[in-house]
Formats: sequence, structure tokens, C-alpha cells
Amino acid sequence: MRFPDDLAIRSASSTILLVVIDGLGGVPLPQTGATELESARTPNLDRLASTSSLGMLLPIAPGITPGSGPGHLALFGYDTTEYMVGRGVLSALGVGFDIKPGDVAVRLNLATLDQDGRITDRRAGRPSDDEGRRIVGLLQDGVSLGGEAELFLIHEKEHRVVLVLRGEGLGADIADTDPQETGVAPLPPRVLHSDSERTGGIFERFFAQARELIRDEVSISGLLARGCARYGGFPSLEERFGLSALAVARYPMYRGVARLVGMQIPGTPSSDEEAVSLMEGQFGNAGFHFIHFKAPDSRGEDRDFYAKAAAIEAVDAMIPRLAALGADVVVVTGDHSTPALLGAHSWHQVPVLLASGAARPTGVSFSESEARRGDLGVLEARHLMSLMLAHAGRLRKFGA
Amino acid sequence: MRFPDDLAIRSASSTILLVVIDGLGGVPLPQTGATELESARTPNLDRLASTSSLGMLLPIAPGITPGSGPGHLALFGYDTTEYMVGRGVLSALGVGFDIKPGDVAVRLNLATLDQDGRITDRRAGRPSDDEGRRIVGLLQDGVSLGGEAELFLIHEKEHRVVLVLRGEGLGADIADTDPQETGVAPLPPRVLHSDSERTGGIFERFFAQARELIRDEVSISGLLARGCARYGGFPSLEERFGLSALAVARYPMYRGVARLVGMQIPGTPSSDEEAVSLMEGQFGNAGFHFIHFKAPDSRGEDRDFYAKAAAIEAVDAMIPRLAALGADVVVVTGDHSTPALLGAHSWHQVPVLLASGAARPTGVSFSESEARRGDLGVLEARHLMSLMLAHAGRLRKFGA
Repeated sequence: MRFPDDLAIRSASSTILLVVIDGLGGVPLPQTGATELESARTPNLDRLASTSSLGMLLPIAPGITPGSGPGHLALFGYDTTEYMVGRGVLSALGVGFDIKPGDVAVRLNLATLDQDGRITDRRAGRPSDDEGRRIVGLLQDGVSLGGEAELFLIHEKEHRVVLVLRGEGLGADIADTDPQETGVAPLPPRVLHSDSERTGGIFERFFAQARELIRDEVSISGLLARGCARYGGFPSLEERFGLSALAVARYPMYRGVARLVGMQIPGTPSSDEEAVSLMEGQFGNAGFHFIHFKAPDSRGEDRDFYAKAAAIEAVDAMIPRLAALGADVVVVTGDHSTPALLGAHSWHQVPVLLASGAARPTGVSFSESEARRGDLGVLEARHLMSLMLAHAGRLRKFGA
Repeated sequence: MRFPDDLAIRSASSTILLVVIDGLGGVPLPQTGATELESARTPNLDRLASTSSLGMLLPIAPGITPGSGPGHLALFGYDTTEYMVGRGVLSALGVGFDIKPGDVAVRLNLATLDQDGRITDRRAGRPSDDEGRRIVGLLQDGVSLGGEAELFLIHEKEHRVVLVLRGEGLGADIADTDPQETGVAPLPPRVLHSDSERTGGIFERFFAQARELIRDEVSISGLLARGCARYGGFPSLEERFGLSALAVARYPMYRGVARLVGMQIPGTPSSDEEAVSLMEGQFGNAGFHFIHFKAPDSRGEDRDFYAKAAAIEAVDAMIPRLAALGADVVVVTGDHSTPALLGAHSWHQVPVLLASGAARPTGVSFSESEARRGDLGVLEARHLMSLMLAHAGRLRKFGA
């Protein structure tokens, strides 16, 4: 069910703080029966949980493992099957590119081709960032699209580049040119739908000129494209819920997703400590405040159970300062689980706490075990926004 | 939300074993407060449950009692409101008929009519199977549809017969001819939608000829039709999820439903013991393995609480052999509840256990009480397949 936007009260002055601990949910160690969160010492989260409604969030649907994009969009109240974001667009967000509705974005690999144009290395030996940037500069300066579209090339890291086209009437139904194997030539940018024909022509022009510009390079002599996607534009939180919003996140990907739904980005902190200070300075400049902590997800992906628990403890240490901001509604949760036992994002439900004057507390600690028995039951993540708005007094009654 | 099929990984080699204990869920005896499952001694299921994720399956939707067809289709990941199977088709499956997409099936009653053509017994005094088969043979040999369609008549038991038409462009929007009362004549096969007009003509032809052929029979002198249904064809598990599948079941109905979604049927065991041996011999020939145990449902329908508990204990005794097969994911559940206190299928949620390396155990026994507190919460049965695929490492991440 889509959230009924017209219930939003557009003048409310209450404040919401959403704290996302990336990859928070876990799978218990067989030896102890405890997850990362349950193994961590989290006195501050436990204290907050004891006065909160608890529950489990289903990020997307049973069994579905979300990437960071869908995981966060769901937390912001967007049905991710309706508001799809393609890979190219997520890559553009990931490098901090300010993508606009109508832009078409695609992921490029810098690759090595042999004299006959066959791929010998799909990642060009993972070039240094300097070398990658040199080639990207050469392409950005050398390619001319003849006014058909604006071209943005952003070097991400090593062999990874994002290409964005900006212009009128662009389409993105264009097949990958990356054949995902070596010994063959890159594929042509085949047009899959007639609405993308002109864009297909622009891509052909780009790849032909690029090929000439780097033909004689030793290592980076080819480009492979995949995940062509058009960003259609989202209604903002302001438009949907009358909710001004700001985001504090260290990593570009999360600032990018926040920007998609119209959040302000007041700065680019370089540590969690700086992020919390920035939130302290900015708190109250919006109705909705989102702060993102990345480390637990990274340690989960490292398969390091106790390092993930320690990363959760480090977030716990920040909680008193965040709680002291005095938001009317404070929510702490994750965008998905990243169990150290799997070393990857997973589909498992994620514990959530919601503190407000109208909470119905059921437990004494913040853990999967307590959350499972909580007042909220199992809640689809996309419904969390309605719950936050309700607790903030920002929703009208439905019907008379 | 429909499960996003394109997330399926089509080359995975992991194995899934789904054990269906028909009618598993129950209602507690007021005297003890324990259900059939909770009254049964099930040490093997309890051991498995203690390392599994537990939860409650909602077969279709709150308050909806499923027949065996929808109950199983939901467990196989099919949205039963989208993939409807009409009564006639289910009856054809129930007699083991190999129904094909485009076939139209209808349930017939052998009935007794008086000299004026009015129904005196809607079940013709429940004839012996020999007598039923004699009449069906007479009709099969005597009726000619003049090449308009192929006719299959299958005697099921006593007065119950299934009629299947096979041919091009058949429709099934045809009203029941069974008026559900005596003292009146059978209704004509009224056409309800223009796309079924030709088929209506075929039915008229069939009933007119049948009437002549059995006019002078003492007992079985009429036919009553109901539940006319066309089988539209389903995408298979292979097509939807890249999942090869095989089914082991003693009863034709369950083999039939499995065949609808493309499962192989390696044999027709005549006891549960034989079924388990067949599964032992076949295990690994597919990614997905389904085994069906019928007795608990039958004892529930008998209203025999302790016989149902004993039937569950008999399944429990088979669990070690099934667990020893080494499937990556083992699920034990039911297609619906059959509380002995009701003596019929019911809408009650059904306990489910899911054992895998990524489970989040919460309990020490397999019971409604433990399942209710489990990690999976209340899960619509149609989402179970995504969860099994996820635990089997057969689903990609959604979004980047």
C-alpha cells in the first residue's frame, strides 16, 4: 500500500531524528546464540530501547536483500518497487554526483584491449587513481557530442568511472557493452527500445571517439559500459509529507540517496565524531534529520563478528549526544542486515527502536531478541515513515 | 508485491528440501491448552527447530481457508489470487489426470432422475466404484463430439467423475448444471461469457447424448456438472526461479499440483516409508525437493485429536532420514491447519521451521507457541519461496 500523502500535516514543527546504523542486523554466532548487536555492550541504546516501541523491520520483502539505495529509500518511506533506481544512477550517487531528473547514467570500466580490439583485462590491471584520472580527463576534454547532450565523466576509484549524459529526451534502454568476459570485443551499445534511439546514437559517438583517443594507451585502451539507467526524479519528502529534511553522512552514496528525496546536505564530515557535531550544529533546521553510520556494515562485510560488535559500540557511544538534541521522535535502525557470518548484505529483518512520548515499551535492551517481541511486530521498512510522522503528530486522522 | 523473479540466480547448485505435513496447524484442546503438534512427542522436529528460524505461515490471507491446491501453490511461491485454479482443474489433478494448458475441466455427479427428468438423488445412492466405472465407460464410448474437442471422462470414486475437454479455443465461463437440490431438473449448461459459446455448444451436445445413453438406467440416469474451469498454464519453478524441482507424494492431488509448476514426479510411493526411500534415492537430482505427508490432515478431518498427534509423531520418526540428506535449506511446515476440533481445513496460521546456515534460532521445540515467537514473524506462505531461495544463496541483491 502506498502511504496516503494527503494525511500529512504541512505546518507541524515537531522534529524527527533517524539514526541509521548501516548493516545493523546480524545472525547469531552458533557458539553463543547472540548476534553482533546482542554481543555488543550498548548501555545507551539499551536505555533508549527501554522507553521505546521496538520491532523488526523487513527491508524490502521476505528473502530480498537490498542494496544501499533501496534499503535507504524504503526507510525514507518510498516503495522501492515503484521508485526504482538503476545501477548507473546509484553509481552516480556513490561518487557524489548531483544527478538531476532526466539524466542518464552508466557505469564504465577502464579496460585493456589487444591490437584486434579484444578484451584482455576487464579492469585494466586496476590502475592507480592518478592514471585513471588522467584517462578520464583525456576523454572529458577530447570527446565532443556536438551539442546533443552534456557529458560528465567522474572517476571513482581504480578502473571505475561513471558517465552521465544530461539533455532533453534521453532514454536508457541500452544494453551493456561489457560482455563480462575476456577474449572478445566490447559489444556495441545496442538500443533496446525505440525511445532510446537518439541516446544510443550519442553513446555510439562517445565510444567511437573514446576508442580513437585511447587507442595507443598501453594499459587503458578500452571502455566497458553497464547498468545504463535514467533518473526519473522523485517527489521529495517536502512534497509528499510536508517534511523539510537534512542528512548528515560521511560517504557520498548516502548523501546522494538523501538528496534524491530532497534532503539538504549541510556538510561532508570526515569522521563519525564530526558527523555528530555537524548534526548538533544543524539540528532544528529541518523537521526530519537523518544521520548515517557506516562502520558496522563494513565490518560485517569483512566477516569480522567482534569488529562489527565494536563498531556498534562506537555508535552507542554517540547516542547520548544525539538523544540530547531533544527530537520529538528518535528512531534507530539499519537499512538491512550485514551478518558477519555471511560477509554480505542479507535479507534478515533488522531491529528498530522508536522513542517518543507515545511509545509502548516492551523491553530493556536493543537486540534482535527484544525487537522480535516488540510492540511494532514485523514492519515493512517503507511503512516506518508513516509511523515516525504519526508519533511526531504530523498525520491527520483518516476518515471522520 | 510480486516476487521479483529476475533476482533468481539460475546456476546455483544448492539444494532445498520442503517437507509438507498436511493440515499441520491445530487448535488447542481446552483441557490442556496444547495443540495436536504441541501434544505430540516430536524429538526430531524439536532438535531441528532448535537450530532453525521459526515463524508462522499465513496460508493465503487472514480468515481464508485454503483448499489443497491454493495451499500448496502458495508454498511453491505462487500468488494464488493471480494463479487461480478452478475446482474442475483441481478435481482433474485429484484423480491424477495430466492436465495441459488450455484444457477445460468440470466435476460431474452421477445422479438419479425420475421419469420426468427431475433429480431424486444428487449422488445416485453413492454407487459402487464398479457401477460408476461401468457408466463412465458407457459414456466415454458412446458420446461423439464430432471432432470439436477431445473428451476425457475419469471416474474418481462413488458418484464422483471428472470431465476434461481438450481442444483449441475452449472457454470455461459456463454455469453449473447442478441445482444443488432435488425435485427439479438439472439446469442447462448456460454460457456466461461469449468466449465460451462454442464450448457451451459442446457441453450441450455431450449432455444430450449422455442423457440418451443412460436414460433407461435404474440408478444412474443423470449427470450434474459444477466448477467448470480452464487451466491457463503456469510458469514453472524453472522458468520463474531457475529452480529444477521434484516431488514425492503418495496421493495424486499433490503430485498433480507439483506437476502444474513443472516438478518432476519420480514415482508413486504407496506408503510414507516408501516416499522417504524414494526421496533418498532421488535427492540431488533437482535443486528443490518437495515431500508430502497426508495423514495428519486426514486424522484432523476425522476430528481425532490424538490420532492426528500420533500421525505427526509418525512423520517426526522420518525426520532424521530426511535431515540426513544434507539439503542446504530444510523447511518443515503445513499447507494449512486442520484442527481436530473443527474436523476441517481452517484459516489458522501454520508453524514453520527453516533450517540453514543463516538461520536465527529462537526456540527449543517445534510448536505453535514457539513458532509464534520466532524470527520470521507471521509470513504469508507465498513469500516462503523467496526466503528459501535467499537462504540457499539463490537470490541476487536488489539494487546496488
